[in-house]
Amino acid sequence: MLNVETLSEGSVTQQVNGRLVIETEGQGFTEITDAVSRWVFGTGILNGLLTVFCRHTSASLTIQENADPDVRRDLLTALDRLAPREADYVHSTEGPDDMPAHIRTMLTDVTLSIPVVEGQLVLGTWQGIYLVEHRDGSQTRDLIFHLIGA
Amino acid sequence: MLNVETLSEGSVTQQVNGRLVIETEGQGFTEITDAVSRWVFGTGILNGLLTVFCRHTSASLTIQENADPDVRRDLLTALDRLAPREADYVHSTEGPDDMPAHIRTMLTDVTLSIPVVEGQLVLGTWQGIYLVEHRDGSQTRDLIFHLIGA
Amino acid sequence: MLNVETLSEGSVTQQVNGRLVIETEGQGFTEITDAVSRWVFGTGILNGLLTVFCRHTSASLTIQENADPDVRRDLLTALDRLAPREADYVHSTEGPDDMPAHIRTMLTDVTLSIPVVEGQLVLGTWQGIYLVEHRDGSQTRDLIFHLIGA
Repeated sequence: MLNVETLSEGSVTQQVNGRLVIETEGQGFTEITDAVSRWVFGTGILNGLLTVFCRHTSASLTIQENADPDVRRDLLTALDRLAPREADYVHSTEGPDDMPAHIRTMLTDVTLSIPVVEGQLVLGTWQGIYLVEHRDGSQTRDLIFHLIGA
Repeated sequence: MLNVETLSEGSVTQQVNGRLVIETEGQGFTEITDAVSRWVFGTGILNGLLTVFCRHTSASLTIQENADPDVRRDLLTALDRLAPREADYVHSTEGPDDMPAHIRTMLTDVTLSIPVVEGQLVLGTWQGIYLVEHRDGSQTRDLIFHLIGA
Repeated sequence: MLNVETLSEGSVTQQVNGRLVIETEGQGFTEITDAVSRWVFGTGILNGLLTVFCRHTSASLTIQENADPDVRRDLLTALDRLAPREADYVHSTEGPDDMPAHIRTMLTDVTLSIPVVEGQLVLGTWQGIYLVEHRDGSQTRDLIFHLIGA
């Protein structure tokens, strides 16, 4: 029988909001793991929950392999196959990359929540947090963070 | 180097639960942004985290473009391509729209968390929160909300 | 007009972390609903928010139908169609099942948040929480839980 083991218990006293602005340069992944980890550690909150929120509908978030960059290349190819640029979209006024960008956003994540234990995100060894830009050109992307705990 | 900027810090004192029942009329999007924003503002919680949870496996949530309705039309077409009705499903006793509805739910969101700052959801300008009905007929859909903060 | 109804309000006093290790045996679903529900109830937290986090990039989470096992069979077939094993991937050093596993993880969930009311997860009647293994062989998978409330 599966049993969840309790690791720690504690009070809840504090919350902090943060913001990260990222200039992207066309379709691709920007890793934010280090920036987020440093900020979480700097808040002094040792145990709690971090939430990352992406304020866009043509860029999104994902947690993916941080080792071989070829994985990210294949993920972009997969998104291109799942939301092809050359499909016959009704919404086409913002360019051929816009509607595929909305679909790719829908299939990935606009928000991620990650527990924090002893000042560290509980990410696995191979997990990195990424902003994924789905548009062709340069864009300014705005992420909001919420951290709650003690 | 990317750096997260702290926007605000504060205490955590309160949580509130809410519920929204929606009667849907076949496949399509129902926007709930205004209803959710009004409720969040009415709770008096100024800073915190809102979570929306959809209690179904054939309807789901997404945050998508709120401007051009053609975007939602193209998103439905995309979901129909990704989870086609005419595939050869083992589970077919509940009708030809049921198994595609489960797949579309898996590919979109059953739960969304959105930070709240100064009484407002931190949604971007073009972001709306939608319930997506994946079944053909009318359904009664039940959403549960959790808001925590101060 | 849609209106969110307030169900309950209360204080926030406590958080608890938990962990569940699961030995998987190839591609498929492992239901964790009972284990999670028992743990939540045992913490004594009556109202709050549970977050489940999967520390892997080739296994993931989903909330899906818990009644007919054929649904899970069709979901696996759908994932196989969306992220086919025989596509021409650049990243192939870890075997033919590895890159499809990353794509399937991206399309499903690495984290889930579920409100807790009166000691119970607010899951719908047909909703079960599942770990989805995407690799061929046996794997040890690590889930972290965060529960906050009172």
